[in-house]
Amino acid sequence: MASEVESKLKSLSINPTVVSHGACQNLVQWREQLDQSDSKPDFDNKLLKTMVFKPKAPKSEPVTVIVLLALEDSVTPTPQITKAAAVKEARVAIPEVVQSILSTSVTDVSPFAIVKENASSVKLVLDKAIIDYKGKLAVHPNDSSKTVFIDASSLQEYLLSTEVEVIEVDFTSDVNAPSTSAAAVGKAEAKKATHPPVSANIEGAALIGITVKKEGDFPGWYQQVLTKGDMLDYYDVSGCYILKPWSYGIWEQIQRWFDAKIKGIGVENCYFPMFVSSKVLEREKDHIEGFAPEVAWVTKAGSSDLDEPIAIRPTSETVMYPYYAKWIRSHRDLPLRLNQWNSVVRWEFKHPQPFLRTREFLWQEGHTAHLTFEDANKEVLQILDFYAGVYEELLAVPVVKGRKTEKEKFAGGLFTTTCEGYIPTTGRGIQGATSHCLGQNFSKMFGITVEDPSAKEGEEKEKLFVWQNSWGLSTRVIGVMVMVHGDQKGLVLPPRVAGHQVVIVPCGITNKTSEAKKESLYNDINNIAQELSAAGIRVKADLREGYSPGYKFNDWELKGVPLRLEYGPQDADKQQVFTARRDTGAKAAIPLKGLADSVNKLLDSIQADLYKKAKTSFDENIETVTSWDQVVPALNQKKLIMMPFCLEEACEDDIKDRSKRTDGDEVEDAKAPSMGAKSLCRPFDQPPGLVPGQTKCLACGKDAKEFCLFGRSY
Amino acid sequence: MASEVESKLKSLSINPTVVSHGACQNLVQWREQLDQSDSKPDFDNKLLKTMVFKPKAPKSEPVTVIVLLALEDSVTPTPQITKAAAVKEARVAIPEVVQSILSTSVTDVSPFAIVKENASSVKLVLDKAIIDYKGKLAVHPNDSSKTVFIDASSLQEYLLSTEVEVIEVDFTSDVNAPSTSAAAVGKAEAKKATHPPVSANIEGAALIGITVKKEGDFPGWYQQVLTKGDMLDYYDVSGCYILKPWSYGIWEQIQRWFDAKIKGIGVENCYFPMFVSSKVLEREKDHIEGFAPEVAWVTKAGSSDLDEPIAIRPTSETVMYPYYAKWIRSHRDLPLRLNQWNSVVRWEFKHPQPFLRTREFLWQEGHTAHLTFEDANKEVLQILDFYAGVYEELLAVPVVKGRKTEKEKFAGGLFTTTCEGYIPTTGRGIQGATSHCLGQNFSKMFGITVEDPSAKEGEEKEKLFVWQNSWGLSTRVIGVMVMVHGDQKGLVLPPRVAGHQVVIVPCGITNKTSEAKKESLYNDINNIAQELSAAGIRVKADLREGYSPGYKFNDWELKGVPLRLEYGPQDADKQQVFTARRDTGAKAAIPLKGLADSVNKLLDSIQADLYKKAKTSFDENIETVTSWDQVVPALNQKKLIMMPFCLEEACEDDIKDRSKRTDGDEVEDAKAPSMGAKSLCRPFDQPPGLVPGQTKCLACGKDAKEFCLFGRSY
Repeated sequence: MASEVESKLKSLSINPTVVSHGACQNLVQWREQLDQSDSKPDFDNKLLKTMVFKPKAPKSEPVTVIVLLALEDSVTPTPQITKAAAVKEARVAIPEVVQSILSTSVTDVSPFAIVKENASSVKLVLDKAIIDYKGKLAVHPNDSSKTVFIDASSLQEYLLSTEVEVIEVDFTSDVNAPSTSAAAVGKAEAKKATHPPVSANIEGAALIGITVKKEGDFPGWYQQVLTKGDMLDYYDVSGCYILKPWSYGIWEQIQRWFDAKIKGIGVENCYFPMFVSSKVLEREKDHIEGFAPEVAWVTKAGSSDLDEPIAIRPTSETVMYPYYAKWIRSHRDLPLRLNQWNSVVRWEFKHPQPFLRTREFLWQEGHTAHLTFEDANKEVLQILDFYAGVYEELLAVPVVKGRKTEKEKFAGGLFTTTCEGYIPTTGRGIQGATSHCLGQNFSKMFGITVEDPSAKEGEEKEKLFVWQNSWGLSTRVIGVMVMVHGDQKGLVLPPRVAGHQVVIVPCGITNKTSEAKKESLYNDINNIAQELSAAGIRVKADLREGYSPGYKFNDWELKGVPLRLEYGPQDADKQQVFTARRDTGAKAAIPLKGLADSVNKLLDSIQADLYKKAKTSFDENIETVTSWDQVVPALNQKKLIMMPFCLEEACEDDIKDRSKRTDGDEVEDAKAPSMGAKSLCRPFDQPPGLVPGQTKCLACGKDAKEFCLFGRSY
Repeated sequence: MASEVESKLKSLSINPTVVSHGACQNLVQWREQLDQSDSKPDFDNKLLKTMVFKPKAPKSEPVTVIVLLALEDSVTPTPQITKAAAVKEARVAIPEVVQSILSTSVTDVSPFAIVKENASSVKLVLDKAIIDYKGKLAVHPNDSSKTVFIDASSLQEYLLSTEVEVIEVDFTSDVNAPSTSAAAVGKAEAKKATHPPVSANIEGAALIGITVKKEGDFPGWYQQVLTKGDMLDYYDVSGCYILKPWSYGIWEQIQRWFDAKIKGIGVENCYFPMFVSSKVLEREKDHIEGFAPEVAWVTKAGSSDLDEPIAIRPTSETVMYPYYAKWIRSHRDLPLRLNQWNSVVRWEFKHPQPFLRTREFLWQEGHTAHLTFEDANKEVLQILDFYAGVYEELLAVPVVKGRKTEKEKFAGGLFTTTCEGYIPTTGRGIQGATSHCLGQNFSKMFGITVEDPSAKEGEEKEKLFVWQNSWGLSTRVIGVMVMVHGDQKGLVLPPRVAGHQVVIVPCGITNKTSEAKKESLYNDINNIAQELSAAGIRVKADLREGYSPGYKFNDWELKGVPLRLEYGPQDADKQQVFTARRDTGAKAAIPLKGLADSVNKLLDSIQADLYKKAKTSFDENIETVTSWDQVVPALNQKKLIMMPFCLEEACEDDIKDRSKRTDGDEVEDAKAPSMGAKSLCRPFDQPPGLVPGQTKCLACGKDAKEFCLFGRSY
């Protein structure tokens, strides 16, 4: 039994210390056994008290139990347990009951006796002191002659994996406080049948869900939100990740929207091979210099060495443009506008991060050729607007549009436009998507020319090099969205991209509910789902058996579903549903009549409010500075900097050096980034106040050309 | 000038012999110069006569010319030229006209003086004898002191690249034959203004388009149809091809249809990395044996060698299933049904063929896990039906559904089901798409288990290995469709997948047409297009300037657009459009009133007729044989064989050996395949007549188990 527990923990990447000792009947014996053991722990630890209760219930009903987990020194009065578990009365369970439900004896029993298969017969009451405890918990691995030491988060991780309903209880608070609350409890109880009170239940669940604080350990939080929110899994090739349906579906939404936009302006999709010969790859010098260190090379097929190594595309400029030279024979072939939805490979050696920096990533890459600069330039900006649309309209993430400095532009291109985002938690800027005007550089390299159509009859027709653009948006957008909106309960998805916009959870079904009543409730829910679906709403009726409403609430909150509808017998009577917004937690009852309209309006509000909130945060964290002295302190406050800038590359290098955080700096938040600040963009929307020839660059004192957005960044 | 011509020819992969000699004013001098030259050709050759005519026209109109290309010994009466060019009168053009339109002198002029930029001012009359001539054509490269020798197909290739309107004329037929036809010509002429007669024009164009016969040189035909039909281009990494928008759009149609089907049964899309570690790849022995010789290995990133080589997925079973083992913890996680739209790499060393066998190809791969064999089996067949639907409903290509023999099944799986197609021109079968039941083989390898949900309370819960399927459909489908439907004029696309289902070409606009009339015609056409588009029809109004209707007809016929609408002043008067079906060539006038309905019906007919035609051909070419003696002769007649079979692998090997064509065999068509026949499938729809225990396998004489479809195949 114990080894089974160990392997189960290992599968959760929990590798606890295990100590063997004599069997023990109770906490006192257990402590003695540990103290006598050779491996007596030399770290802070507390025994985990595990007790099983049986609620009073008619014999005709299936047996359920309440399992209490508490620190050894917590006082855990039974009334507080029964109240938390929402049962009238409960007694310590007899050995037969423990055996039949948890397949273990009363002395061996531990949280590990709860497994997926019995979780639906269990309510788990969790002592809040466990969560706050920083030492190690001593737990029997379903065997009283052994002890494993794990920390509270691992215990929570395990419990989450079992899908047991967890009710967190603060045993330090007095259950029998003011008598007025007794009545209130009664009322709350009645309501709870329909809508389990969110305060305790959900809060506990959230802690069970995401075990680290977003503000405290952002990378840990990000990883948990992605994996527990079912977006992604880690993969055994470093820097590569699995996009699970929940995140891939978001990508599909983005694809659908963006694909329609670009097709609307005449772009067509195509597919070029992922392989590129070294000769072609290395054709444009500046360009390849930027990518060469990250190119993955295929050198073998089967057991044969290839004559020449073949690269996997890091991007497709040099893959595609030899063919543009072939296909474009006359100005009548212009504009040529092709796009690909594909994956590219950049074998970065920097620390990888899901969505943000991965060795293979999905993106679209557009490559277009135009007769004139004006046409090319117009498209560059049109595409940039679409990119901003993906962020602002779909993902509810604000961005600043602008142009990259010479230092930061795309290697080999003429100029780069960009959408820049901001991650408030880390105070770092992030490049959202870029739309490049390549000018005539590539067309000159690859010989992409047409004869001048404006040449007069009989004149020598001049050869014109075409004007080219390339533009790309990757799955990085998903990572930015998660970082901006996610909270302590998990993902928060904007309605426009959420796989399910609405989830309906049946509530208030108890052992006393008749089959007929239940069936009628499920029918209603299916009808509601159908009505919403017919109105174009992506809705999921969560009629899974064997999961409590509380479990379902947590599950969908972790996954960020924008709106939850609860529906129970009382709602049926009142012809209403009870709504809970994921973003604000706001709850309300709304009538069934006109539900699709109300839900659509609510979803629109959620979408708008998410954007508004993120926009406010972004705006508040752009500090327009008037002297260099303000720069580093503002960066240390996790802000971005808007400052008058000379646009010179040497000055930009200098700013990067001078804006690194040094040990002497005052910092409000030790988690604020410390690297030097880069220029993020020259915003199209310039703040007022820059007087040419008068306003100086704050860094070097030369004439400032423009306001430029700087920041520590990804 | 001559060198420019040479480089232009090179860009078309035409590398002619060039001979220099003295300048010459006419054909007699030219032949003398060649005869005197050191490089006097020692092969059959004829001089190409190039003459320029100017049709009579009001001075106010832009100047156009007629260029005649004829063999030196063809008699080419001017009336026949003017008639073909549909002009009233024409004279040999004066030098100034030749210079102004063709930028060359009368003595230097050659077909190479026609380029894209002037092609709209030229009508080219092509002597049919050129096309039939098997020797080399002597042509001036716009310089009378040089001669290049090219064959007729290269000349046609060049002309095609210029997009000039080509009118083919048989100068051996008597233009002044029976006087009755004179009147007929008059009538035809009137009609021609609206609808250029297809007989001569299009036939000539078709030859200019596809220069080899489908029946004569199928590989050459296939290559031309794909490249000239704008589906695909060849790529500089061998075995890889560029999917241009015209073919990628077909793939998008297939994706949309199939994606909706699988989502409808609960499959979700996801994305797994393209890379797989050797350890994981090699986990399932039988499976990897099938793929190992074709796996591409990445061994370097930038300039660093990787610690371990990493494979590019040839398929994703071993990529995905370790995660299935992790994700599937209970029967409640089943079925798990994931699909990917991605590309895979199989570095085959066999001769590559666009769409059919390529080193990287696009496909979808579904991977599902089920609790029971019954569930898995049900899905295998459901998916196979969807695959058959892609072929039969979308691509109008009939297939035979069945099960693969043990010898031909997917390595490592339990059994394979398949859709088998047939290419009448080569008489070869082709595997269309396969849906595999993997059984429990992979789940045992990867440890994908759940506890038996049917175990009774308290019993030991048995571990059940899940049942798995995998299924894939690739861009190969496009190749099959092209091979089945394409004809001598190029592609024939079924309406359901064609990028444009309908193209509208303005006709009957002459130099005499007023701007107002033209504008009103274009307005009408735009309105028609809008009406059709509103009815869900993918329609293109081809209002390109500078291209003749004939050129546009050829262009869209090459590209296989199912239905052409022609609309001219007379149609406007009659409130009708003139329709031309791509598949049958059938033409008719239909009223504008109710056009969308009529067009939709026509498109449905085209779709149905394409299928019917292909189905008839398939059915006629499956020969149910009753003795072994019939097998090889039938195969030699490019048929597939339906025969009672013992299902034994040794016998199948034997059949392959014995069914190779030998030199002594009588063959109707030397192009029939000669390799041994493979079993294609055990059709679900079995012919009658097999009596168990009585009917014998035709190959070995043992008891026959089933009818099996055999054929020489791709």
